[in-house]
Amino acid sequence: MKIALAQLNYTIGDFEGNREKIIDCIDRAKAQRVQLIVFAEQAICGAPAYDLLNKVSFLNLCEDTLEEIASHCFDIAALIGSPAQSSNKTISVAALLEDGRVKRYVGKKTIRSRDEAGYLSSSKGCEYIKIGDKKVAVVVGEDIRTEQEYGEYADLIVNLSNSPYSRGVVERRYDFYRQLAFMTGKPVVYVNQVGAQTDVVYDGSSGMINSRGEAMMLLKSFEEDFQVIDTEADQEPIAFPEQNKTRNVYHAIKVGLSDYFTKNGFKTACLGLSGGIDSAVVVSLAAEVLGAENVRVLLMPSQFSSDHSVEDARALAENLGVEYQIVPINETFAALTTTLGPVFGELPFNVAEENMQARIRGMMMMAISNKFGNILLATSNKSEIAVGYGTLYGDTVGGLSIIGDLYKSEVYDLARYINRDREIIPINTIIKAPSAELRLEQKDSDTLPPYDILDAILYRMIEEGQSREEIITAGFDEEQVYKVYNLVLTSEFKRYQSCPTLRLSTCTLRINRRLPLTNKYGY
Amino acid sequence: MKIALAQLNYTIGDFEGNREKIIDCIDRAKAQRVQLIVFAEQAICGAPAYDLLNKVSFLNLCEDTLEEIASHCFDIAALIGSPAQSSNKTISVAALLEDGRVKRYVGKKTIRSRDEAGYLSSSKGCEYIKIGDKKVAVVVGEDIRTEQEYGEYADLIVNLSNSPYSRGVVERRYDFYRQLAFMTGKPVVYVNQVGAQTDVVYDGSSGMINSRGEAMMLLKSFEEDFQVIDTEADQEPIAFPEQNKTRNVYHAIKVGLSDYFTKNGFKTACLGLSGGIDSAVVVSLAAEVLGAENVRVLLMPSQFSSDHSVEDARALAENLGVEYQIVPINETFAALTTTLGPVFGELPFNVAEENMQARIRGMMMMAISNKFGNILLATSNKSEIAVGYGTLYGDTVGGLSIIGDLYKSEVYDLARYINRDREIIPINTIIKAPSAELRLEQKDSDTLPPYDILDAILYRMIEEGQSREEIITAGFDEEQVYKVYNLVLTSEFKRYQSCPTLRLSTCTLRINRRLPLTNKYGY
Repeated sequence: MKIALAQLNYTIGDFEGNREKIIDCIDRAKAQRVQLIVFAEQAICGAPAYDLLNKVSFLNLCEDTLEEIASHCFDIAALIGSPAQSSNKTISVAALLEDGRVKRYVGKKTIRSRDEAGYLSSSKGCEYIKIGDKKVAVVVGEDIRTEQEYGEYADLIVNLSNSPYSRGVVERRYDFYRQLAFMTGKPVVYVNQVGAQTDVVYDGSSGMINSRGEAMMLLKSFEEDFQVIDTEADQEPIAFPEQNKTRNVYHAIKVGLSDYFTKNGFKTACLGLSGGIDSAVVVSLAAEVLGAENVRVLLMPSQFSSDHSVEDARALAENLGVEYQIVPINETFAALTTTLGPVFGELPFNVAEENMQARIRGMMMMAISNKFGNILLATSNKSEIAVGYGTLYGDTVGGLSIIGDLYKSEVYDLARYINRDREIIPINTIIKAPSAELRLEQKDSDTLPPYDILDAILYRMIEEGQSREEIITAGFDEEQVYKVYNLVLTSEFKRYQSCPTLRLSTCTLRINRRLPLTNKYGY
Repeated sequence: MKIALAQLNYTIGDFEGNREKIIDCIDRAKAQRVQLIVFAEQAICGAPAYDLLNKVSFLNLCEDTLEEIASHCFDIAALIGSPAQSSNKTISVAALLEDGRVKRYVGKKTIRSRDEAGYLSSSKGCEYIKIGDKKVAVVVGEDIRTEQEYGEYADLIVNLSNSPYSRGVVERRYDFYRQLAFMTGKPVVYVNQVGAQTDVVYDGSSGMINSRGEAMMLLKSFEEDFQVIDTEADQEPIAFPEQNKTRNVYHAIKVGLSDYFTKNGFKTACLGLSGGIDSAVVVSLAAEVLGAENVRVLLMPSQFSSDHSVEDARALAENLGVEYQIVPINETFAALTTTLGPVFGELPFNVAEENMQARIRGMMMMAISNKFGNILLATSNKSEIAVGYGTLYGDTVGGLSIIGDLYKSEVYDLARYINRDREIIPINTIIKAPSAELRLEQKDSDTLPPYDILDAILYRMIEEGQSREEIITAGFDEEQVYKVYNLVLTSEFKRYQSCPTLRLSTCTLRINRRLPLTNKYGY
């Protein structure tokens, strides 16, 4: 059987745009005498659509769009993901389009993702369709991981999916489909979305695996792709491409940043450069994705800024060809402290004044954003966000955070990757000790464990769900472990108000790990 | 059968505190020779616990606590809500405690709430237990709304619930249980939680309805309560108490505010007083709940503030006996504009400068909060939040919003209710035209439709889910309807970063109505 796999970048709610892309692929497939073309889960409308899934008018548009596309489906069958109404509930289906009409729906049973639970209802699960003389098991989304009996009856398993990027997912997904094909003894075709919707990045990486668990065809990661294969043709298997976690993160961020701007009609970005590693990585990626001419940068030194901070920031901006201006915060800080003087009285300098500096910077960046229409990119990393080492409404402000789901050590990895061909980020920024520079000679390590230890504790706590005791048993210092746990648990209120953050890890804070703010339990 | 209903205020994760409350009620019930005592859903741990529900150590503590309580259950049976592990998933159960041990679990099938979907899995649903010679249908949570066949086999229906307050819910819940009892011909006992967990307020209002749909016993709303009834005793039905929406909202806010502070160990609050209605209502409630001596207020006038703003704010603070200080924002604003001058060049005053003023105020309040440990109360209302008429990181900042789920007209209702005995909120604050005062002679009505029209459109759009066409057909101005829809759709990004907001309506923004930020569809 000749099958086409269409791995496309959809936009939520852009029925016309999504429809045109889909029809274009159907036409290409027909020209190649393809019998079945497969699209991703919820291709019609894009995902996650949240409460749009419960608007009748939205669902009607999905249905109308499916019918329009079906009118192109003669001499070809198409499987396209869409939400659908089913007795007052919304389910996720694979629609079979054939003979010019929408022939049937195969529903999804497993609703597991945080983005779907509460918005989509469970349906029947895997069903079989006939394409020519072949029996095809149609499986939507995560049903592929829960319903494994279908293999027996089918000549082919087809999975329409909607599987976002997360650290290591490409490798894991390849392994999963290989095992599935091998265990069931049936070839598997799976088609994923590609592209980003706000904070969710789909990596694509669709493919076809034969019944021996070998790849017969693999579509690109992080790009649209369209490929055709004849399942009966005698063909050599291909090698699974080697994966590099840092390179994948780099591509995921590029797609996330690019699509957030393109799909929302934004053009220009701004951010504050501190001379530190986080803002250096963000501005480098922004300049590459949006063009240096579309990125505006402020350097906002205070009396506590070291000379090298300004120098490093300036060198970076010049390396990138990004427009920068130096705007010291001292005068505003002085005015603010003078005005608040009668309220504060004789109380000593403390976290209030530290936060004031970060908030003045946040305010300046938002003023730039409002004045020039630049989207402000946040620069906090996951290590800081996890332990609450950042000022709410200060360094947490922004329209999008592109590194907020990366631990500090991953930010360093990314910096080295960005510098792979030439020194874009000044080497001094990479090697110097991190500091918030909110008081005299402050270092992050005054308050926090060194980042290699902090990150290791956080990774075990957050990504692996280990308890304090497990981490201590693994050899970490008891006092540090307790301290880190406490910091994470007491800073949940800051994450409640965080800005949209590209999801890059296996456990994104706020999304995959949400705690009640009122809570006496510290695990 | 003698039944006790224990309507208690639990704290999430406070296993010891919750256990002591529960055991105390069991002891009281035993002293009255009660056969069955019923507690609310998830009484053991409090709700919503989100990802704590997926920590094994948390679930183990739930189990341990149930067993400790069970050791008190001789000569009495207890039904207590708890999460429980079931083949690697977490379900919500009613645990039957009898003869000193945990005898069995009855699981919940219907997972519908946004706070549970994704955190709890579906279980079997309604089961029957024997108490003396009576057959009792045990129903957990929302199963009561979906599984209606149990009536036939039972002598009594018992519903452990977890039903938060929302506008009009007390009346609707009474109606629901009356109809249920009447239709099934069985008496119904239902026990709800009371008290708040961050933004969720449980109103209690538990009770027993006889098989004719008459109330035999009703527990208090918004307070803990414990009552005993003999289901066989010949007793006159009691009247359902009259409900007043504004009074209920008032009590819901008081519980929400009080519990947020008490359960988190906070004592003092701060906020900015503008002279407008929103901050006036917030400070009045804060002074009543926390004590005037625990509330600190800043008046932060600018060159655009009218004289009456400061006067009205001052009069209010004095009426309440709340400490206030006047801290003009002019100097900080001047310093900020001077510093940004080289960046802004000759560009005219616009929304950037308007937002700067709101952000300076937000920053000042956060400085106060950091310096003195006061929790900042946000003062935006739902009408503003819905249309994005507020400055992100400016007037949206805070630790808790107590009126953010009330339309402007409901805020006025509340102001009049607060003034029911004497003029606390200056009458001028209630009658003057609302203004953000961020530029010369600005009025909200320059940008927005008058609030009575705006609120009517928003109510139809948000609470009733009506489309533009439906609202226009109902007689609203087409241009205004389109404008309001657009404002709501394009301001979703602000709500993504909103602070915890007491849920008081039937459709709380961000929680019950969540839209993708990347979205081309405007319904």
